[in-house]
Amino acid sequence: MERVQKELVVDLGDRSYPIYIGTGLHRQAKLYERHVAGNQVMVVTNETIAPLYLEGTVEALSKFDTQSVILPDGEKHKTLDVLNEVYTALLRNRFNRTCTLIALGGGVIGDITGFAAASYQRGVSFIQVPTTLLAQVDSSVGGKTGVNHVLGKNMIGAFYQPRAVLADTMTLETLDERQLASGIAEVIKYGLIADGEFFFWLEQNMDSLLAIDKEVIAYAIERSCQCKADVVAADEREAGQRALLNLGHTFGHAIETGMGYGEWLHGEAVAAGMCMAADLSLRLGWISEEEMQRCCRLIARAGLPLNPPEELNAERFLELMAVDKKVLDGRLRLVLLKGIGSSIVTDEFDQTRLIQTLSEYGR
Amino acid sequence: MERVQKELVVDLGDRSYPIYIGTGLHRQAKLYERHVAGNQVMVVTNETIAPLYLEGTVEALSKFDTQSVILPDGEKHKTLDVLNEVYTALLRNRFNRTCTLIALGGGVIGDITGFAAASYQRGVSFIQVPTTLLAQVDSSVGGKTGVNHVLGKNMIGAFYQPRAVLADTMTLETLDERQLASGIAEVIKYGLIADGEFFFWLEQNMDSLLAIDKEVIAYAIERSCQCKADVVAADEREAGQRALLNLGHTFGHAIETGMGYGEWLHGEAVAAGMCMAADLSLRLGWISEEEMQRCCRLIARAGLPLNPPEELNAERFLELMAVDKKVLDGRLRLVLLKGIGSSIVTDEFDQTRLIQTLSEYGR
Repeated sequence: MERVQKELVVDLGDRSYPIYIGTGLHRQAKLYERHVAGNQVMVVTNETIAPLYLEGTVEALSKFDTQSVILPDGEKHKTLDVLNEVYTALLRNRFNRTCTLIALGGGVIGDITGFAAASYQRGVSFIQVPTTLLAQVDSSVGGKTGVNHVLGKNMIGAFYQPRAVLADTMTLETLDERQLASGIAEVIKYGLIADGEFFFWLEQNMDSLLAIDKEVIAYAIERSCQCKADVVAADEREAGQRALLNLGHTFGHAIETGMGYGEWLHGEAVAAGMCMAADLSLRLGWISEEEMQRCCRLIARAGLPLNPPEELNAERFLELMAVDKKVLDGRLRLVLLKGIGSSIVTDEFDQTRLIQTLSEYGR
Repeated sequence: MERVQKELVVDLGDRSYPIYIGTGLHRQAKLYERHVAGNQVMVVTNETIAPLYLEGTVEALSKFDTQSVILPDGEKHKTLDVLNEVYTALLRNRFNRTCTLIALGGGVIGDITGFAAASYQRGVSFIQVPTTLLAQVDSSVGGKTGVNHVLGKNMIGAFYQPRAVLADTMTLETLDERQLASGIAEVIKYGLIADGEFFFWLEQNMDSLLAIDKEVIAYAIERSCQCKADVVAADEREAGQRALLNLGHTFGHAIETGMGYGEWLHGEAVAAGMCMAADLSLRLGWISEEEMQRCCRLIARAGLPLNPPEELNAERFLELMAVDKKVLDGRLRLVLLKGIGSSIVTDEFDQTRLIQTLSEYGR
C-alpha cells in the first residue's frame, strides 16, 4: 500500500517546497513527475541503499532519461573526492543545466547530492528521498548541503533548497537499531528545544516509535519537520534563532571529529551532547534535577548513549570545539536549556561550569 | 600616486557592490577597511603575483588578522584539489564564518577564491582585486565562481557576489603582451555585442590601450564593466539575455578544452571564437563583409589570433561543443552578430552554415 499520509510545506518564498510523508513514496511516479525539472535525472545513492530501493526508484522515473551513481556508504566518504564522482557521472552522461538530481539515501547522500546540485553548472534541481529517520527529520528541512574536510565537519557546502522531499516510512524498516535510535535523538531534540508538549507525547509513545508504528512515526516526522521548518523559515541563513537546532551538536561534533567520522553515528553523538548540555544547564541553575532526569531517561529509553566516549577528556573536548562553526570570534556559544521545551543560544555563562561538565563527562 | 579614477555600482539589490578603478588600489587600506567583514582576512594569490603585490596588499590590511595562501599559477590548477588548499589554509588558521577572502590575481584566482568564499562554512565574504585586464573586465561582474573538471570547463561552481572589486591599473604594467591582449579580446567583445559606439572608440584608441595609457585603460574598463553590469542586472542567473556575453565562448571553450587548459589563453580562444561567430553570421547573411572585416581587423591589431589551432578539425569541434553548458536539451545555441554592437542568442540557424564555418576554420 502506497500512500501519502502527511504533507507540509516549508515556507521560503519562491524557494518553498513540500515534504510528503507516507509509505512507499520512493516508488511513486506521480510525485516525481510533479517535481522533476527537465528530462535528465540522476539518482545518487549508496552501496547499502541501492540493492533495496534503487530499482523501485528508477522504475518510478521511467518517463525520464534516468541514470544512477552508487557511492560508497558512510560519513567517512562525505568528501570532495566522492562529490567529484557525482560530477563525473553527470558529465559522462552529458547532463545539462536543466537536469534533476535525486538523493536516495541517508543524510550523507542528501548532503553530497544537495551540494552537487548546488554546484553542478552553478546550480541544478534536486529532490530528496531520505531513507533514514535522521535524514527525514533533519536534512529534509534547512537546505544545508555539503561535505567534510579532514580538519572539520561540514566545512564545505552551501545553503540550497530541494524541489521536494519524499519521506518514505517504508524505508525505515530496513534500518538497524542504532540508526533508528540515531534519528530518534533528533526527534527528542525538537521536543527539548521548543515543544514541551511533543516531548511529553514522546514519553508516552516511545515504544511505538521504536516499533516503527506507521501512524506514530509519520506524526513524529511531521511534528519534527514542522518544528524545524518554523525555526528555519524565521532564520534561513542561521544568523540567530536557527542555532537552537544545534542543541547537543557542539559537543556532538567534537565527539564525531575526535573519534573519526562514522565511528559514532551523528544522533548518538548528539544524544550524549544533549546530556552534556542538560548537565551544564543544571549546573547553571537553569533547569531542575527532575528535568535533567526526564531528558536522560527518554534518551536512554531510545537506546542512545548518555555519555561521550571514554577516549575524550576535557582538554581534548575544548580543543575540538574551538574549530566548531558555532565559535564566533573566539567565544564559545552553546545551546542550553531553560526547561523542557525551552532553550537559548548564548555565550554568557560561567565558563568554569563548562569545565566542570567537561571534566565530569570527559574522563 | 594612488587614486580612484572611476567608481561604478553593480546593481543587484541587497547584493549590490562597487567597482573601484584606479592606480595603486591594491594597497589602499581605506578601501579594504570599508568592505572587509569581520576581523579575519585571507589573501588568496598565486606564485606569480605574490612577489609583486602580496606585500603591499598585506600591509594595507594591517588592521586585520591577515593570513595568505599562495596557489600554483595557471588555468590547469583551477581544480577541486587546489580549491581544497584554500579550505585547508582557512581551517588551519581557524577562520570563522565572519571572515573575508581577498582574491589577489587573475581570473583563475578570482574564480577559485570566489567559490571558496561561496562554499567555506556555506558562505563567507570576499573582495576581488583582479590583477589582469581580463579579470578586471570579465570576472569583476557577474558573480560566476568555480573550478574546472577534467571533463569540462567551469562545470563546478556557484553564483556568488563579492563585497567590492578593486581594479588596479598599476598591476597591468607587469602583464606580458599575450595576457594584455587576452583582456582586450573581452573588451572588444562588449563593443561587438552591445555597443557599436564603444567599438568605434576602440578602433580610435587601440594603440593607447596597448600602451596601457592610464586614462584610456580606466575608461575601457569602466565601459566594459558597465556593459556587463547592465546585462547581468537584467538576468543574474543566466536565463536569457546574459548568454550574449558568451559571444565567441562556445567555440572558445572548445579550443581551450581541446588544447588542454592553459595552452591557449582564454581571451585568445575567445578572439578566434569571435571570428568564427562573425564568419557564421556573415554566411547567414546577418552581417556584411565589411563588418566582418572591421571585427577581424580590430582583433588582429590587438595581437590576437584570428584562427583556432590547427589541431582541431570540424568533427572535433562539434564533439567538444556538445558538452558545453550552452547546449540546451541537445540543441546548439550560439551567440551571433546582427551588426557591430548588435547580437542575439539563438538555436535557429541553418546548421549546414555552422558546418561550413567549422570546416573553413577547423582544418
